[in-house]
Amino acid sequence: MRQAALRFGVKASVYYGKGDIRVESVPDPEIKEPTDALVRITHACICGSDLWFYRGYERDWKPGFRTGHEWMGVVEEVGKEVKTVKKGDWVLAPFAFSDGKCEFCENGLFTSCVHGGFWGGENLGGQAEAIRAPFADGTLVKIPERAGGDDAVLTRLLPLTDVMGTGYHSVVSANLRAGKTIIVIGDGAVGLCAVLSAKILGAGRIILMGHNPDRLELGQRFGATDIISTRAKAPRGNEQVSPPPELSRTTSWAGFHLGLAINDAQAVAEAVQMTGGGAESVAECVGLKSSFDLAIGVARPGGVVGFVGVPHVTEAIDLGRMFSQNISLRGGVAPVRAYIPDLMDQVLAGKFDPSPVLEMSVDLEGVPEGYAAMDSRKKIKVMVKP
Amino acid sequence: MRQAALRFGVKASVYYGKGDIRVESVPDPEIKEPTDALVRITHACICGSDLWFYRGYERDWKPGFRTGHEWMGVVEEVGKEVKTVKKGDWVLAPFAFSDGKCEFCENGLFTSCVHGGFWGGENLGGQAEAIRAPFADGTLVKIPERAGGDDAVLTRLLPLTDVMGTGYHSVVSANLRAGKTIIVIGDGAVGLCAVLSAKILGAGRIILMGHNPDRLELGQRFGATDIISTRAKAPRGNEQVSPPPELSRTTSWAGFHLGLAINDAQAVAEAVQMTGGGAESVAECVGLKSSFDLAIGVARPGGVVGFVGVPHVTEAIDLGRMFSQNISLRGGVAPVRAYIPDLMDQVLAGKFDPSPVLEMSVDLEGVPEGYAAMDSRKKIKVMVKP
Repeated sequence: MRQAALRFGVKASVYYGKGDIRVESVPDPEIKEPTDALVRITHACICGSDLWFYRGYERDWKPGFRTGHEWMGVVEEVGKEVKTVKKGDWVLAPFAFSDGKCEFCENGLFTSCVHGGFWGGENLGGQAEAIRAPFADGTLVKIPERAGGDDAVLTRLLPLTDVMGTGYHSVVSANLRAGKTIIVIGDGAVGLCAVLSAKILGAGRIILMGHNPDRLELGQRFGATDIISTRAKAPRGNEQVSPPPELSRTTSWAGFHLGLAINDAQAVAEAVQMTGGGAESVAECVGLKSSFDLAIGVARPGGVVGFVGVPHVTEAIDLGRMFSQNISLRGGVAPVRAYIPDLMDQVLAGKFDPSPVLEMSVDLEGVPEGYAAMDSRKKIKVMVKP
Repeated sequence: MRQAALRFGVKASVYYGKGDIRVESVPDPEIKEPTDALVRITHACICGSDLWFYRGYERDWKPGFRTGHEWMGVVEEVGKEVKTVKKGDWVLAPFAFSDGKCEFCENGLFTSCVHGGFWGGENLGGQAEAIRAPFADGTLVKIPERAGGDDAVLTRLLPLTDVMGTGYHSVVSANLRAGKTIIVIGDGAVGLCAVLSAKILGAGRIILMGHNPDRLELGQRFGATDIISTRAKAPRGNEQVSPPPELSRTTSWAGFHLGLAINDAQAVAEAVQMTGGGAESVAECVGLKSSFDLAIGVARPGGVVGFVGVPHVTEAIDLGRMFSQNISLRGGVAPVRAYIPDLMDQVLAGKFDPSPVLEMSVDLEGVPEGYAAMDSRKKIKVMVKP
């Protein structure tokens, strides 16, 4: 099925093991299927979820795997059946590719596409100079021509490849209704984008929980009305931390096991008090046992936790409290492709700008440095300009 | 606040420890608050969830606790502020009492009532000759007079106190849409009532999973169109059980950990094959780690698991599959009070009859025998006629 090869002399970022990312020459991507496109990448990102393999938590990751799943660029070549994009078009890719035609794609659940997959790993990675994009029609979203040459505009659009759509999915999944309160757990790029999403979706009150003062401050700029720090507070004598009375009252039956770190328990107490019993919508944007505990702990009876952090949870979450208070858990890997067109329109119309999460910019050779900066939490998120 | 005492010479069922239930004389219930009613109990049930303390799994249960949370009867006396029921009325009680006025009651989430609670335990129990019902207006539902004297009709209504409303809640929580497929996990009374609920809510296909042939057969009478047995099948040589191709395909990314018993894995494979990839709605009616595994395993991408089994889960449920396929978990302790009026109308109109789950009837002295019969799984559910 080979149709053509592109002679880029492509460089790409490659995983070699824990903390070991290298930029090296790789075989040129080629059109393999008539539905493929080849794209020259102009902007990419390092994602918080890339840190899972970088830190050695992904057993399935093998040396030689490509990295990067957030990227945009210019189409260089398309297969015979591609209809919606052509050579020279600027395009944005969601972090998953999808055929756009199956039952799940038709329902907007592009991440469950029966022919789909994710960039990176055994597939081609987006932290690279070029990439083969399968199912170009079902995957890529064309950027209007007027935006294509404008680096500032492209930078504002870049977070739509993943973190902005993922934050948005957490808020949509949490069933936020206009005027209501949402609590966002996590001050990483996704949590911050969840704050931005809650704002554009008309939240009445946005409470952001996190532990990094600088990020919490950016959260306020993005629209958080209240901040709760989960950073350990200075000890105040022999203080005992108990569940707040509201929590204790409403969870007495099936039993809420307050197995939280003291600072987290204080944060839950603070949120429950602040909201008079918890929030109807909670966005879980981390994926750890502790963040699920926080999310379930601050949800109001009958409320919904929208979860989008890749779960790395090996212990039981608090099904007891979910059960006794009818708290739902919705969400998952974000079908970002479904959200991009509308979010792109809004960014282009100047309604919001998620690009402040991109705190550092590197060229392709700088990718290992970018991983290190995110791993050490010095930077929220790093942009890559190959 | 004492207003009056009733001289019943009341007997009640009392918990003394694992497997130790005794029927003994207890102090007469009395009107304590002007919103109370005293009810002479005519029909009650033993619930599958009563087996948790009977089997010694509820650490909080202490000798002397009253048992029983499913009951109906005749009002003997009401407090001064009670408006909706009067002496002589037949009434049905949901398994939780509720003030009917708070934010949560107004939203139909009666089980999260800020003044509410559950029968049994430290409160008065329903396996007794009489009971004090707090918040009579917010809790009790009047049975139309024409039904009050008819034992057969009352028996048909009795499961509405808990298992029918709970099964119904699982199906509503699982977001069943008319004409669609639902998989019900569990062939206990709640699972069987979930089948009945799915039928009256217009399911196109109802697949029941369980391991008891007699109960599965009753499930078919209730409307199950397909049966999947989780009972261990005869070994077929060195057969390896792998996830079915559909499951393997759609869960390859975040990883589906097939930590199921072989018979459960076979059942999941069967269900996934039968539905071409899982069901959009799944009702989890057990509350064990294994039943959550089954439920999440057979849910279609984007599907919803409605859970109503009191969770006794100490290990991590498969958040990985929930995440990768956007499978939601909704439900919890059923706000049965919200469902009773409509379900009562339907029973009285002859539209359905959940009473076949009541396989045995005892008088109050027979309560210990009833527990033993359910504990040994000889009977699905036992009716008590004090």
